Amino acid sequence: MALIVQKYGGTSVADTEKIKNVARRVVATKEKGNDVVVVLSAMAGQTNHLIELAKEIQAAPDSRELDVLLSTGEQVTISLFSMAVKEMGLDAVSFLGFQVPIETDPIHGKARIIQIPPEKIRRELDKGKIVVVAGFQGITPSGSITTLGRGGSDTTAVALAVAMDADLCEIYTDVDGVYTTDPNICPKARKIDKICYEEMLEMASLGAKVLEIRSVEFAMRYGIPLHVRSSFSDSLGTMVVEEDESMENVMVSAVTYSRDEARITVSKVPDRPGIAAAIFSPISDANIVVDMIIQNTRAGDLTDMTFTVSRNDYQKAMEIVKRTAQEIGAASVAGDDTISKVSIVGVGMRNHAGVAGTMFNILARHGVNIHMISTSEIKVSCIIDEKFLELAVRALHEGFGLDAE
Amino acid sequence: MALIVQKYGGTSVADTEKIKNVARRVVATKEKGNDVVVVLSAMAGQTNHLIELAKEIQAAPDSRELDVLLSTGEQVTISLFSMAVKEMGLDAVSFLGFQVPIETDPIHGKARIIQIPPEKIRRELDKGKIVVVAGFQGITPSGSITTLGRGGSDTTAVALAVAMDADLCEIYTDVDGVYTTDPNICPKARKIDKICYEEMLEMASLGAKVLEIRSVEFAMRYGIPLHVRSSFSDSLGTMVVEEDESMENVMVSAVTYSRDEARITVSKVPDRPGIAAAIFSPISDANIVVDMIIQNTRAGDLTDMTFTVSRNDYQKAMEIVKRTAQEIGAASVAGDDTISKVSIVGVGMRNHAGVAGTMFNILARHGVNIHMISTSEIKVSCIIDEKFLELAVRALHEGFGLDAE
Repeated sequence: MALIVQKYGGTSVADTEKIKNVARRVVATKEKGNDVVVVLSAMAGQTNHLIELAKEIQAAPDSRELDVLLSTGEQVTISLFSMAVKEMGLDAVSFLGFQVPIETDPIHGKARIIQIPPEKIRRELDKGKIVVVAGFQGITPSGSITTLGRGGSDTTAVALAVAMDADLCEIYTDVDGVYTTDPNICPKARKIDKICYEEMLEMASLGAKVLEIRSVEFAMRYGIPLHVRSSFSDSLGTMVVEEDESMENVMVSAVTYSRDEARITVSKVPDRPGIAAAIFSPISDANIVVDMIIQNTRAGDLTDMTFTVSRNDYQKAMEIVKRTAQEIGAASVAGDDTISKVSIVGVGMRNHAGVAGTMFNILARHGVNIHMISTSEIKVSCIIDEKFLELAVRALHEGFGLDAE
Repeated sequence: MALIVQKYGGTSVADTEKIKNVARRVVATKEKGNDVVVVLSAMAGQTNHLIELAKEIQAAPDSRELDVLLSTGEQVTISLFSMAVKEMGLDAVSFLGFQVPIETDPIHGKARIIQIPPEKIRRELDKGKIVVVAGFQGITPSGSITTLGRGGSDTTAVALAVAMDADLCEIYTDVDGVYTTDPNICPKARKIDKICYEEMLEMASLGAKVLEIRSVEFAMRYGIPLHVRSSFSDSLGTMVVEEDESMENVMVSAVTYSRDEARITVSKVPDRPGIAAAIFSPISDANIVVDMIIQNTRAGDLTDMTFTVSRNDYQKAMEIVKRTAQEIGAASVAGDDTISKVSIVGVGMRNHAGVAGTMFNILARHGVNIHMISTSEIKVSCIIDEKFLELAVRALHEGFGLDAE
């Protein structure tokens, strides 16, 4: 007998029939003798629908009230789901964020979990009940509802697994695991059976949408094994676990990409201390995340500064940078919002020299020009023209031997 | 400067445009220098939609989980409404049942309010905020969400008015007040400017749907004046207040009706002690409310027992009664589900003899046969064939001088 936390995403609970299907799975897990804590997202589409309603009233909805609004999505699914379990003859009880409680800081819209006292859930499990917890939401010490940001239900699930000292955390989704790359772009993509936390973390950061980053960080820090799998089939998915020796034999585990990137270049910046802060502080003050940064020194104490932002933030960032450029006496600002990022990830890189070089060669062989490069111990990312993105993904997938046979 | 509690029903907040309109009203009240506490219902139709979802999963949805589900309706409107107020430049804060807290007993689906500590709302009012409270919902001492039953938002509003020691409780609805009878049946119905609690209570019990009964009881017990008015116009509605002398001069204040009644007769019941209990206990055990009861004694220690139930409960009640009739040796059971109830209400009846007789005469003059009669100090109800209902309402409205000129 084990304690298992199962999280089901929005597509898995999109309507009452799907909710019943999920309930059957949970009941089966319980009837094998396990204790089960279920974490649910809102029905697919519901969160967006609520955001649209809010925007009919306020272009930038008040963050506290938006959390009150959005948290209803999970409230609907946990109550319906608990009914479904009861209809099948087992006992269940639903808990909202404030009832567990899932205590968070007061940063509405992207709150962080402070702690989760396990006692209340433990008590209900001991009574033989399936405990159904609303994902994505928490409560501040002063009693306001918070939400954890997009994908927050994954974080709820892993944090609960940690708090309850669970044996396993299963993340059910609409795909059957983590893939070597996006099968929509590369038909030869393969499901990965086992991957380590660090790789999963890089993949999540680099655009793979299957798991939310913070949930992987949490699982890694506390050593909770994650099982990413499909709620529509019984086949095993991808285990996300501690790194082991077998993993080092694989040079590259996955190819990821992020399509919607944009690049901004500030030319002939007077190169003096503090100039980077002058350029980037106003951008971060506007809550825009800068990804890669490259600085090229020219002759005569001048430098060129190039960086990338998400394409959504491109217009806003350009406006800010143009103002800054005038203030600091830079010559010009240029931009390009038709670029994308392609990356390779693998813990094996640590022990294999020349992986980056192989990547550049593969891209060159296919005529793909590289604009910017960024590396870490276990990944290499290249900024390329968006039009080459699919080609680059397939070429790298094949070139690093990831293609399915 | 006064403290005013305003309650808006589901049709007043049915979409985001209507929510903005209501926010304008509330802001206007606040800008006149008043403290305002707003109580909102769910958007019209939302509660029924959620019940349908639940019934797709459980024919008789689990009562605790149904409350979790239904309470989302008000959560949506209070958050959107608070945004609307902020968009207009004033400050607002929303509170759910658990946040106030509105403490109730644990009877899910029809919980009763135990107490409402006023401190938290008071604190926000003192900061100049408009406080927006979810109607219809509460929280048990052990932290489960409850709902107060249909029309429960009226009760929330009045209970808050009591707890906050408010000067006035305004109930905004889609009609412009309480009418002498249903204008859909009787075009000459008039809006009543002032009515006393007792009359309002009888009217609510007798089928007038404008106010929920418990809210009137609460207001009466604590002497909170209610103003029932339209959220779509600025005209004054109906004040519900303590009885005063002027009210006694009016013999009949209103004509009410309840269409969906049904009648069951058990014939030749052996007339011995305990026989009524034998018939009615199984019915109340099935949560069926019996309204009128008539017992006619026959010769030979036999009696006929006739009673009425809501038409919804007719089939179920018939089944129960047929079983009982066999057990107690009654001769037969007959029923009729095409009857209705028409009533006259007025505190003036106390001082005017012959009001009931006048009612019977009016009905007789129009050829309406009376099957059963029930009276109290301030009302007379008659069971008649459903086909005569509209005729009877109009005849009584005219006969007691209620027609508009």
